[in-house]
Amino acid sequence: MIDRAVAGRVQPSSTLLGPGDDAAVVRVPDGRVVASTDMLVQGRHFRLDWSSPEQIGRKAVAQNGADIVSMGAWPTSFLVALGCPADTPVAVTDALTDGIWSEVSELGAGVIGGDMVQSEQLVISITVLGDLGGHEPVLRSGAQVGDQVAVAGRLGFSAAGLAALRAESAEFPELVAAHQVPTPPYRCGPAAARAGATAMTDVSDGLVADLGHLGVASGVAVELHADLLDPDPRLRAAAAVLGADALDWVLTGGEDHALAATFPADAALPAGWARIGEVRAGSGVRVDGCSWAGDGGWQSFS
Amino acid sequence: MIDRAVAGRVQPSSTLLGPGDDAAVVRVPDGRVVASTDMLVQGRHFRLDWSSPEQIGRKAVAQNGADIVSMGAWPTSFLVALGCPADTPVAVTDALTDGIWSEVSELGAGVIGGDMVQSEQLVISITVLGDLGGHEPVLRSGAQVGDQVAVAGRLGFSAAGLAALRAESAEFPELVAAHQVPTPPYRCGPAAARAGATAMTDVSDGLVADLGHLGVASGVAVELHADLLDPDPRLRAAAAVLGADALDWVLTGGEDHALAATFPADAALPAGWARIGEVRAGSGVRVDGCSWAGDGGWQSFS
Repeated sequence: MIDRAVAGRVQPSSTLLGPGDDAAVVRVPDGRVVASTDMLVQGRHFRLDWSSPEQIGRKAVAQNGADIVSMGAWPTSFLVALGCPADTPVAVTDALTDGIWSEVSELGAGVIGGDMVQSEQLVISITVLGDLGGHEPVLRSGAQVGDQVAVAGRLGFSAAGLAALRAESAEFPELVAAHQVPTPPYRCGPAAARAGATAMTDVSDGLVADLGHLGVASGVAVELHADLLDPDPRLRAAAAVLGADALDWVLTGGEDHALAATFPADAALPAGWARIGEVRAGSGVRVDGCSWAGDGGWQSFS
Repeated sequence: MIDRAVAGRVQPSSTLLGPGDDAAVVRVPDGRVVASTDMLVQGRHFRLDWSSPEQIGRKAVAQNGADIVSMGAWPTSFLVALGCPADTPVAVTDALTDGIWSEVSELGAGVIGGDMVQSEQLVISITVLGDLGGHEPVLRSGAQVGDQVAVAGRLGFSAAGLAALRAESAEFPELVAAHQVPTPPYRCGPAAARAGATAMTDVSDGLVADLGHLGVASGVAVELHADLLDPDPRLRAAAAVLGADALDWVLTGGEDHALAATFPADAALPAGWARIGEVRAGSGVRVDGCSWAGDGGWQSFS
């Protein structure tokens, strides 16, 4: 099965030694490597009746890739450990690895190593390595009072798609697709770093929750403006049908893997970024001056 | 729980940014990074009634560390993803992370990132990064006809300990301990690289199986001599009591994470290494001229 996952795949030039030995070797011209890891568990992070194995593979890569671009770096190498029940059809693991490779290839990266073991549940653990390209990493802790707060990418689409799946609605295929395979605005991460972003994070738990983490790390408050967060008409349409609040999806929906960052007040925002608020002295995240009363967004360990 | 796993731990100087942001940043002065990943699943790779959580944590790190030293590199950074059932006592996850950190610290390395999610089974997925220190990696594919074959570290101890656990024997605590926490001869890996090792691998599946992989990768045959593999008296004593064959443990027992390597015929073997045979033209692994009839060693996906 490991051979099937590896055979015929194209590695980037940074992969000096790919899968097949005790370890892989990657070129790191910057002299620093960025690294992050995530574990996804069947039934908790994905459902095989709601997503195809190919979509699950793409999503697993996308959420890891988003962690790297939110540092201002670019993903170069992925390591994939897969736990599968003994009766998992080969077609499922093939589609999963195809999905992984297809998102990895879009990034120009490679799967440089992995493991495949038997487990009760399908478990996917991915580690991603990234390249800073000579720039300093953009941390969560660098936001300054007076900075602009901005986002790149979609907000609330994944949450709306999940609500449609839960309601067994067939009306919103585009939103369901956004839940199945997020499309992080990868290039906006390094672009923000070059434009002088002072702090950055990806939106995995929800905008309010993740800006809350950024605010705590920076020791600042974040003030958002609802009129700058006006939900997309597609979200409004779905919210009306599904009995939900579209702004709630935008503020607390996770898994879109948008990027949120702070920039100096006078910085020109790079393409793809839109201002949504400012950094203030204090703590917490407020929308139009009120603390958000929601549950703070999706959590993976509850 | 992640805070508990991270708080108060000491990072090595190579960790430029540790856990807590979207990703970690590690210094890579060599310009290349070595990387490997392994997944361990409860009931398949460990049992909580046979090993303490602390031992399981140490073993998970040791088997990953062995993959790095078998390239001639040194482990510097670990990423740990942990899946736990909802009812896992905090004492168990604390002991597991203590075990992980204790083996990581012995290596002078750091845990730079991780994830913690809910799952049905305990699942530990570890990725390790390593530093080549300016040397070329030692691959499985470099063995030359006429080379010496040598090993460093213990063989068969883990298999004997597992047999004692299965037989519910309390007679062999030292062997059981070897199964619970392997002690890879870490420093022998880089030492072999400096001494001109032409190929190297760690012994995770069993000596015959892993030398078989090395032989295939190098396009050579491996000839071993039983008199150079004489089982330790402690293995002979246990084999007599447990009705097993001590040489079988030495040849096919996995999980000791010994190192096996090939060296030029005239090379002086570094400390800790012992000659066990030679590289010949052809294919396969033979012991005193006979093909090994065993099952080829332990497999993680059967």
